[in-house]
Amino acid sequence: MKGLLIVISAPSGTGKTTLVNMLMKSHPDMAFSVSCTTRKPRPGEINGKDYYFISLEEFEKKIEKNELLEWAEVYGNFYGTPKDRVIKALNEGKDILLDIDTQGALQVKKNYPDAVLIFILPPSLAELERRLKSRGTEDEETVEKRLLIARRELKFATRYDYIIINDKINEAYKKLESIVTAERWKTRRVREHFPELIKDREMLQLLNCK
Amino acid sequence: MKGLLIVISAPSGTGKTTLVNMLMKSHPDMAFSVSCTTRKPRPGEINGKDYYFISLEEFEKKIEKNELLEWAEVYGNFYGTPKDRVIKALNEGKDILLDIDTQGALQVKKNYPDAVLIFILPPSLAELERRLKSRGTEDEETVEKRLLIARRELKFATRYDYIIINDKINEAYKKLESIVTAERWKTRRVREHFPELIKDREMLQLLNCK
Repeated sequence: MKGLLIVISAPSGTGKTTLVNMLMKSHPDMAFSVSCTTRKPRPGEINGKDYYFISLEEFEKKIEKNELLEWAEVYGNFYGTPKDRVIKALNEGKDILLDIDTQGALQVKKNYPDAVLIFILPPSLAELERRLKSRGTEDEETVEKRLLIARRELKFATRYDYIIINDKINEAYKKLESIVTAERWKTRRVREHFPELIKDREMLQLLNCK
Repeated sequence: MKGLLIVISAPSGTGKTTLVNMLMKSHPDMAFSVSCTTRKPRPGEINGKDYYFISLEEFEKKIEKNELLEWAEVYGNFYGTPKDRVIKALNEGKDILLDIDTQGALQVKKNYPDAVLIFILPPSLAELERRLKSRGTEDEETVEKRLLIARRELKFATRYDYIIINDKINEAYKKLESIVTAERWKTRRVREHFPELIKDREMLQLLNCK
């Protein structure tokens, strides 16, 4: 069966990374899409794992050739999702997970309407601020910047297919996993795969008769 | 939150009753819709539990007054789903499960487009026949009749929202449960309940701004 393209967005501090890691761990077949970027690698970042680090020229060529499923410029750096790898994996039956911002997610939906968009909400902005501050890894200015971006991103949540409120992580995870499972059994998807799924010729004929 | 109206159909012998019982057991809040019928109660059947046994006149009055979510005549007897009970329970936030045939299911979808229709398929017609025969409770003629009805019902499966193939009962159940969970978090449903779900006024405003 063709894989699912799952796009997850959430403001920083919502618990998205934890949820994505839980999902990847319990679905070893699921592939995580590695973005390409023109920004320089940070210490410890591995090319091909964290990002594909490419030059601005290479990036521009990819845009021209329509080789990106989505892309955006953020503070002077370019980020994008290489289309060929995603489409190849989907055709091989692998589900692909994209962890991108709202700008990118809505581009993906436009270019690949079959994508499943999931937005994860914090219970409140106050709780988001509390979580960001309790990390202790970012200074106040960075926290303020993240909250500003969060406010901007929240405006696009209702354009997603699903909205999960991450109040309790295990409950949020159960919802996320259920969405992935349920989406596979939507009639329009199952239908495309009747010949693989159903070996009974008469049944196949009956199912396809309307 | 408003409840979900879940409609499950499957040919007799597919394992629908087992799946429905599993779902009801692990979701004690879920209500099962009791149909009304003009047929006489069989020994052991309880009025209000198995069916509401009513007269033909009462049934016709319900049709006239548009009090049924769906109804059908089967071998001279009438069967229908009382609308008021279903709508009341949904408004109270209870999920309702309807176990009805394709004719009824498609009527429900027409009258209540928000209903979630799930069709359960046997792996093959041969397997369905084997399961029906192995029950040992029905004579050959009844088995043949059930297979004939199954062939007729299968033609409508692709009109449902989801299709589950019941090959292994636990896997089929996991899919069924995932569908129920996922459907609750579809944006259009969550959106209706933002004021209940989100106590943060600023966040609510941001979510509703597009």
